[in-house]
Amino acid sequence: MFSFELIAQSIESRARAGVIRTSHGVVETPVFMPVGTRGSVKSVSPEELLAAGARIILGNTYHLYLRPGCDVISRFAGLHQFMHWDGPILTDSGGFQVFSLAKLAKISEEGVTFQSHLDGSSHLLTPGKVIDIQNCLGADIIMCLDDCIQYPATREESLAALEITTKWAQRCKQAWQETKNGRNALFGIVQGGMFRDLRERSAEELMKIDFPGYAVGGLSVGEPAEVMLEMADDTLPNLPETKPRYIMGVGTPENLIELVALGTDMFDCVLPTRNARNGQVFTQQGTLNICNAKYRHDTGPLEPDCACYTCQNYSRAYLRHLYMAKELLAYRLNTLHNVYFFLNLMRQVREAIVQDEFDRFRKQFYKRKSTKRRSSHEKKS
Amino acid sequence: MFSFELIAQSIESRARAGVIRTSHGVVETPVFMPVGTRGSVKSVSPEELLAAGARIILGNTYHLYLRPGCDVISRFAGLHQFMHWDGPILTDSGGFQVFSLAKLAKISEEGVTFQSHLDGSSHLLTPGKVIDIQNCLGADIIMCLDDCIQYPATREESLAALEITTKWAQRCKQAWQETKNGRNALFGIVQGGMFRDLRERSAEELMKIDFPGYAVGGLSVGEPAEVMLEMADDTLPNLPETKPRYIMGVGTPENLIELVALGTDMFDCVLPTRNARNGQVFTQQGTLNICNAKYRHDTGPLEPDCACYTCQNYSRAYLRHLYMAKELLAYRLNTLHNVYFFLNLMRQVREAIVQDEFDRFRKQFYKRKSTKRRSSHEKKS
Repeated sequence: MFSFELIAQSIESRARAGVIRTSHGVVETPVFMPVGTRGSVKSVSPEELLAAGARIILGNTYHLYLRPGCDVISRFAGLHQFMHWDGPILTDSGGFQVFSLAKLAKISEEGVTFQSHLDGSSHLLTPGKVIDIQNCLGADIIMCLDDCIQYPATREESLAALEITTKWAQRCKQAWQETKNGRNALFGIVQGGMFRDLRERSAEELMKIDFPGYAVGGLSVGEPAEVMLEMADDTLPNLPETKPRYIMGVGTPENLIELVALGTDMFDCVLPTRNARNGQVFTQQGTLNICNAKYRHDTGPLEPDCACYTCQNYSRAYLRHLYMAKELLAYRLNTLHNVYFFLNLMRQVREAIVQDEFDRFRKQFYKRKSTKRRSSHEKKS
Repeated sequence: MFSFELIAQSIESRARAGVIRTSHGVVETPVFMPVGTRGSVKSVSPEELLAAGARIILGNTYHLYLRPGCDVISRFAGLHQFMHWDGPILTDSGGFQVFSLAKLAKISEEGVTFQSHLDGSSHLLTPGKVIDIQNCLGADIIMCLDDCIQYPATREESLAALEITTKWAQRCKQAWQETKNGRNALFGIVQGGMFRDLRERSAEELMKIDFPGYAVGGLSVGEPAEVMLEMADDTLPNLPETKPRYIMGVGTPENLIELVALGTDMFDCVLPTRNARNGQVFTQQGTLNICNAKYRHDTGPLEPDCACYTCQNYSRAYLRHLYMAKELLAYRLNTLHNVYFFLNLMRQVREAIVQDEFDRFRKQFYKRKSTKRRSSHEKKS
């Protein structure tokens, strides 16, 4: 069971609001998906994620395949029961991690051979195997194996990766249809490096194969934000309007706003969770680092008017103390705030789209940030 | 506001049930106090502690004095508001940590000079200062400064420590009375090493000074469990029956049961929290190490019939996976179970005392453990 319905379309931009229906529940789009790499969104519980507004989370096939392994997760009714998360789950194909984490990745039409970053053991991921693993994990949305190239890449490299991505996508579609259980949806992934025409060609080839949804991969890999937005701007209109569009691994609150304006429905990124563990906290007026000595006596919350558990119950002084003392609770409280910030931003974005006020919301978003910058500057001068 | 009321007294042993009333709420005894060294019971939230059954927690004066410091905590209505814990708090005097963690502790009648384990800075803790700091922290039960000797110690060392402990106790009592705000209670601490007559003398001297409650310090410092129990057995009957009796820094579930039988009302120990972070989990049938490969595919909870959050929602296989992957959630879920185990044990102990079935409970407790040992042995043979 999977469907996507468009609810509203902004007049001033390509921003849109929709609803994804899965067998584990409904997801309103645009949506941000917190990342639970190894079967846990680091430091927080499923109940806390739900309370923060999370409706769908991401799991990483590469990590879960290597540890604990499908033999373990198959004892449970998939990842949902294993990790005690009842809502929708999207799993990636593992391709990105193979190319970024594993050693000696070797690519052929058959698939990709790599050595585990954990114990050096050798593995072969084929399109068919990637579908099998994701079926075992029981995710609601699963992804095709794709060839993720580094940035910068030449036109030749980008073309070669595109071509193999298309071939793998065909075989993934076939494997998915053969093992179809009616409970998950398979998304294709657009590649093509930073070349407009290659991105266009990749999108066309994937649409011919026909998927329930489309992702744009290979962005936010080191290129300037303008190039990333340009690629998205070119690629997104080529994808079918009636299907969800997912930009993988992006990004900052600004990136999210701009990509929504270009018609993106789904996002995932480790930014809110990873940065929280490094003491960086997101607020409407920009980021703050909780280590900063100026918060030592600060009895106020991370962000005034924030409704998250952390801001409702703890001060900056306490959070700074926990962080300086390396207390485990520090990572959790910072994470809860950051995750809430991202989820709440997307809720506001969606509401603005539905009310046809997205453009105004976007302007206000940047105004709040520039107010902060001006006032910080004034203090210094 | 502070009072202690005896509710029930076991006929077969010296075990007793009581109620401590503080300005932050009521505590039923015998009670186990989870340790929140630096203003946080490591990895868990106040709401989770409450749900696990915690009614009073402990904070460490030494740690909080050094970081974040009284200048920070005094901006809040004490430690309660700082750490978002509304229930009763007991703080130790810092003495134990000065002798175990700090460098170059020098003792005089005035107090103890030490170097911070954090930055080497030099500090002097006097009886008066220890009361001031604990008043600033706003704890409901505060402790006298005592001279904690190492084990083994000679009779001369034990006597000298006893004498200085008594002198400090007099000055603590005086400082407490001078700064008395009517909101906290000061406990004296019995010392005297492993010498019965010195323990007796220490108890007598403290009772002459007269405190709202009495602790036994200097136990569980490396001596055999039998010696510890012997010292407690000798010391506890010398303390007034109408006042709460607290044995500091103890111990295993077996220690707790035996010390309750000897008439102890209060306990604190890092055992459930620290061991949880090392993967050791307490069950009615003994401890288990979650790293063990035999739990890899184990879909059952840590302990069948356990009502804690962890056992209600997660399997041993998942907890093992989290622990092996060093996921932050692992420490929290193990801690929640262990804390629940200790708190639930004390609830059962209290209920047994009230029903005058403590002796039967105690026998059952050991029977369950020996059943485990026998069945493990059978499997091996």
